[in-house]
Amino acid sequence: MNCLVNMNGKILPLSKAKISVLDHGFIYGDSVYETLRTIHHYPLQLNGHIQRLFGSAKRLELPVPFSAKEIKGETLRTAMAYWKRYSSSELYIRIIISRGFGDIGFDPNLCRSPLLIIIVKSLPLIPKKLYQHGIHVAFVGTVRNNPKSLDPNIKSGNYLNNILAYLEARKTKAMDAIMQNGEGYITEGTTSNIFIVKNEVLYTPSLDSGILKGLTRDLILETAQKNHIQFKETHISKEMLFDADECFFSSSLKGIMAISRCNSKKIGIGKPGHLTKKLSFLFQDAVKKSIEEEYCID
Amino acid sequence: MNCLVNMNGKILPLSKAKISVLDHGFIYGDSVYETLRTIHHYPLQLNGHIQRLFGSAKRLELPVPFSAKEIKGETLRTAMAYWKRYSSSELYIRIIISRGFGDIGFDPNLCRSPLLIIIVKSLPLIPKKLYQHGIHVAFVGTVRNNPKSLDPNIKSGNYLNNILAYLEARKTKAMDAIMQNGEGYITEGTTSNIFIVKNEVLYTPSLDSGILKGLTRDLILETAQKNHIQFKETHISKEMLFDADECFFSSSLKGIMAISRCNSKKIGIGKPGHLTKKLSFLFQDAVKKSIEEEYCID
Repeated sequence: MNCLVNMNGKILPLSKAKISVLDHGFIYGDSVYETLRTIHHYPLQLNGHIQRLFGSAKRLELPVPFSAKEIKGETLRTAMAYWKRYSSSELYIRIIISRGFGDIGFDPNLCRSPLLIIIVKSLPLIPKKLYQHGIHVAFVGTVRNNPKSLDPNIKSGNYLNNILAYLEARKTKAMDAIMQNGEGYITEGTTSNIFIVKNEVLYTPSLDSGILKGLTRDLILETAQKNHIQFKETHISKEMLFDADECFFSSSLKGIMAISRCNSKKIGIGKPGHLTKKLSFLFQDAVKKSIEEEYCID
Repeated sequence: MNCLVNMNGKILPLSKAKISVLDHGFIYGDSVYETLRTIHHYPLQLNGHIQRLFGSAKRLELPVPFSAKEIKGETLRTAMAYWKRYSSSELYIRIIISRGFGDIGFDPNLCRSPLLIIIVKSLPLIPKKLYQHGIHVAFVGTVRNNPKSLDPNIKSGNYLNNILAYLEARKTKAMDAIMQNGEGYITEGTTSNIFIVKNEVLYTPSLDSGILKGLTRDLILETAQKNHIQFKETHISKEMLFDADECFFSSSLKGIMAISRCNSKKIGIGKPGHLTKKLSFLFQDAVKKSIEEEYCID
């Protein structure tokens, strides 16, 4: 696998990118992260991702050893090193802050040197036919983490809740899971926010459903507003999803991905619906504008 | 810090015990573990810990690359190497199975080589006066993980729920936290089970409160039974704790540790009570017998 890793400012091949077994990111999953992709070789919503990274770190009282500007610079530098060394492909970028090395124990003072890690590799290709036909998903019994236990808005190295949901979904041959909260309302997929469409109105779980405030979700809602598409952030039940005309996931890596079946039942016509298609089209434009603004391109 | 690390059978100094940044134990906290201590240089309840390790791994569909016998052998070998190289101190032992190195993603097939890691270091000394006077703890707002989200019986590398509780408790100057479940019942400390005593009866949260089935908890209940001390596993409210005559934590590393104050309020007489002391005494004996049985000592 072609991969470069920036560790506290030093760019290394993957084979040399190692951490101690006593890194608290390994011992406790005590780390925060963001994943993003490049589009036309620009890391999409990089500022937003870095801002959210700082937000997650603050929630864990995890000091970030670099400024936002420095992390931005290091991310771009690592991406450019990748393109120079390997290929000019679009990139997957993961930015991690780990609590770092320290004796075992919960006291943050045990770890004096938090670690910035930027992993850069070729963006995994998502088969076009998935976008054309939509994916199959399943409701799972694994309940999304209660925000009072571990807020899904802290993007952290504690990902077993999502992995358990994924494993459960795969047993039903579905490609991904939809997780509910303790009250039975829909929250999100294992790495995506979720939207449904009913009678030309876009619905997505409200933040108090216990979800990550996705940056792609934000961009989709902005796009809907600008284009006079009616939308509502609300509590969404399982029944509302089965009764929906359309349904899709959103994420930084996948963009908008239609859901055609859930628990083997067709959603709407069982193909990407017309509002999903319209939003996917408008979303491309929003992405282009976002890049132009972020990178000051005229 | 004097520390030896066994990685898949190879014993290394800490400085050489490194894992890839793409180890899923680091990326997702996708690992399971056990911690234990030696007493008279015998790892206490080693068989039980290894059995539970396999149980946790099974819940995550994580294949363990060694048999229970092999892990036992490797643990003893690493302990002996430590004593030979450093000192004859009692040991802290952490046995970890990590999903291992693999490309980013949830599919377990991405990681073909799970990793056994055994960390051995000198047992941290717990000041005697804590046992003599008992510790101060606090109820926290952080709710213990819902077993339907991530079962506390899976001892995993996802520990942020407990760390958040600990950070919250430390802000009140307490030494540790008591966490409640979603229904408000007491579950456990951040690394301990909890017991209270009322009118000579021992109470501890029932397993359906959403707790780890602690091996020390098991040994205490066994000890109570053998010595005709009445006990009850049940749902325990905050009020029951404040109204208790005595209260203590139990864990593999600390044994029995009295709680003298909670949220600055005295529990009972504000010192280790007489049943706590009696159980501590009987527990020493149970530990001795457990070692004699496990290591076939006449």
